[in-house]
Amino acid sequence: MASRKATQPIHEFPLIRQLQRRYERRSPLVRKGIGDDAAVVSIPAGDWAVLTTDLLTEGIHFDLRTTTPMSIGHRAAMANLSDVAAMGATPRFLLVSLAIPPTLRADDIHALYRGLMSACGQHQVHLIGGDTSASRQGLFLSLTLFGTTPKNRVLFRSGARSGDGIYVTGTLGDSLAGLRLLTNRRPSQQGTALKKKARDFLIDRHRHPTARVQEGLWLNRTQLATAAIDLSDGLSGDLRHVCEESQVGADIALATLPISPACRAYADAHKIDPATLALAGGEDYELLFTVAADDEQKLERQARSRGFLVTKIGRIRPRRFGLQSLASDGTRTPLPITSYRHFTSRMKHSG
Amino acid sequence: MASRKATQPIHEFPLIRQLQRRYERRSPLVRKGIGDDAAVVSIPAGDWAVLTTDLLTEGIHFDLRTTTPMSIGHRAAMANLSDVAAMGATPRFLLVSLAIPPTLRADDIHALYRGLMSACGQHQVHLIGGDTSASRQGLFLSLTLFGTTPKNRVLFRSGARSGDGIYVTGTLGDSLAGLRLLTNRRPSQQGTALKKKARDFLIDRHRHPTARVQEGLWLNRTQLATAAIDLSDGLSGDLRHVCEESQVGADIALATLPISPACRAYADAHKIDPATLALAGGEDYELLFTVAADDEQKLERQARSRGFLVTKIGRIRPRRFGLQSLASDGTRTPLPITSYRHFTSRMKHSG
Repeated sequence: MASRKATQPIHEFPLIRQLQRRYERRSPLVRKGIGDDAAVVSIPAGDWAVLTTDLLTEGIHFDLRTTTPMSIGHRAAMANLSDVAAMGATPRFLLVSLAIPPTLRADDIHALYRGLMSACGQHQVHLIGGDTSASRQGLFLSLTLFGTTPKNRVLFRSGARSGDGIYVTGTLGDSLAGLRLLTNRRPSQQGTALKKKARDFLIDRHRHPTARVQEGLWLNRTQLATAAIDLSDGLSGDLRHVCEESQVGADIALATLPISPACRAYADAHKIDPATLALAGGEDYELLFTVAADDEQKLERQARSRGFLVTKIGRIRPRRFGLQSLASDGTRTPLPITSYRHFTSRMKHSG
Repeated sequence: MASRKATQPIHEFPLIRQLQRRYERRSPLVRKGIGDDAAVVSIPAGDWAVLTTDLLTEGIHFDLRTTTPMSIGHRAAMANLSDVAAMGATPRFLLVSLAIPPTLRADDIHALYRGLMSACGQHQVHLIGGDTSASRQGLFLSLTLFGTTPKNRVLFRSGARSGDGIYVTGTLGDSLAGLRLLTNRRPSQQGTALKKKARDFLIDRHRHPTARVQEGLWLNRTQLATAAIDLSDGLSGDLRHVCEESQVGADIALATLPISPACRAYADAHKIDPATLALAGGEDYELLFTVAADDEQKLERQARSRGFLVTKIGRIRPRRFGLQSLASDGTRTPLPITSYRHFTSRMKHSG
């Protein structure tokens, strides 16, 4: 039976079909959802299509022993929503593919879909198709998200210019702190100084991150951002992508990094500098964007009036400047080359 | 290092980046390919988008002991191209995600991409993005193909009406015969009567199937087909999908099934009825379509003038007729409910 299931498209896998029916929503844009050779959708005439895809593997991106299937689904969808947000586009359609190991229970698949659709539902994203297979070992989840944006109106990584202010939305480091709380094997250390409310906040920020879709659309519409990226690998790594694509350097003032009270409390309790959490922590799914110096006041005014939290954290420099961080004691050091490891809280330094 | 790679987007995986550079082609439709948060493409104004995705898993859809990585790539791309062809759409953009086990060599990944791109190159499909991850065990390949079609011009499964002629392109059963030649453990039986040329033909039809993209576009443009599907699970299974979606029955004349001389020789050598190969064989990637009786002559005339091989194999009947096959001795039997098992040559009967 497993082999037979393996070759069936998603709508013929009885459980998946049931889930699809539950989550399929009518939309004038969806001409054909699940149930044909391919999905057919219409998009506003002349709009550009924006596409992103992620493949998440058990034991690499998530650990089913420490993460719930619902959180896996939610975070996977948010990661894709965040990519579309970073382009300033409207997320619209989702394709979901699963390779399901024999150990996974039907309840887990239900929970995974609940997580996916709770994230998508917030942004009126429609599930239009996918594929399902058996997996000999390990759960694999592949998502493809399709967004749209008016033509010639898109936020690339490559537009930052020397002199631009560097901004981020929200607060940084929360997700990493939350992950460490979930995976730390020394509970004695963490329980002491951190209040339950702070602890819950950080864990929720890790389990249920929010893609900054509205902020991305605003930045794109107003044309105030010169470049944008989402913070999925951590500020240090993602800023580097912007600098490489834009052929510029950057100077980050560590004291200005937006740290939530809970993250600050976590850092205090563990006697670490919250800036290291902010620099290295992945999966915050905040947006980093750059703004021409002349537009900074306008941008900050608009953000305030819309209730968006944005914080200037540094300035784009010429390429030869490299990437540096400025500490509160006035010393500058090269920004570490970090790469966030999802599901363990360790970082890898290389290069 | 493996963990670090696991979290990197495809363009940062050094080998993948190298392959992407090799296969990236400039196109005015691709506004941004690999190297940003998402790909950005433009499509003809007012066109509808057609999306299909497949997730292929080692040990389920393919066996690296009996299949080459190049053939896996080629067949995976063709399966998606065939889905888009069955909608009558133009395939345009491909996203490729891989979860790579530690056992896979760089050469294998090169060969997989060569296979993917040899299939895509035939149809001017552009590689625009993807994701790469480590896999603890087993190779996983997820493809998403994006096509376009003029609005309101698309071939669904649901349009077949009682009285319509049932047609297929090309010949049926070749891929299954080729697969059996590759996996048959009784070489004594197969070597005897089958000439090398026939054997090579069948194996090539299995390893390098052809998606009927031009035929699909023609059927859609001329509006002569009332419904269409591609034959990936086998005639018996796929015709059933059309009948379910269209709420009709079907009558198939077994003697009219188009069988290649090589497939007929294979069947003769193994003393089996070639019709069983045609009915059950998956991965032929021919198109099955239906045509109103009044349009059949026109369709056949046009096919001849364009050099497309199409064969009428039966007729759509009312739903209560069910799905039946008519043998050459005049007896009718219900069409078996088969489901093609990829990579083994066995079929599963159920229901």
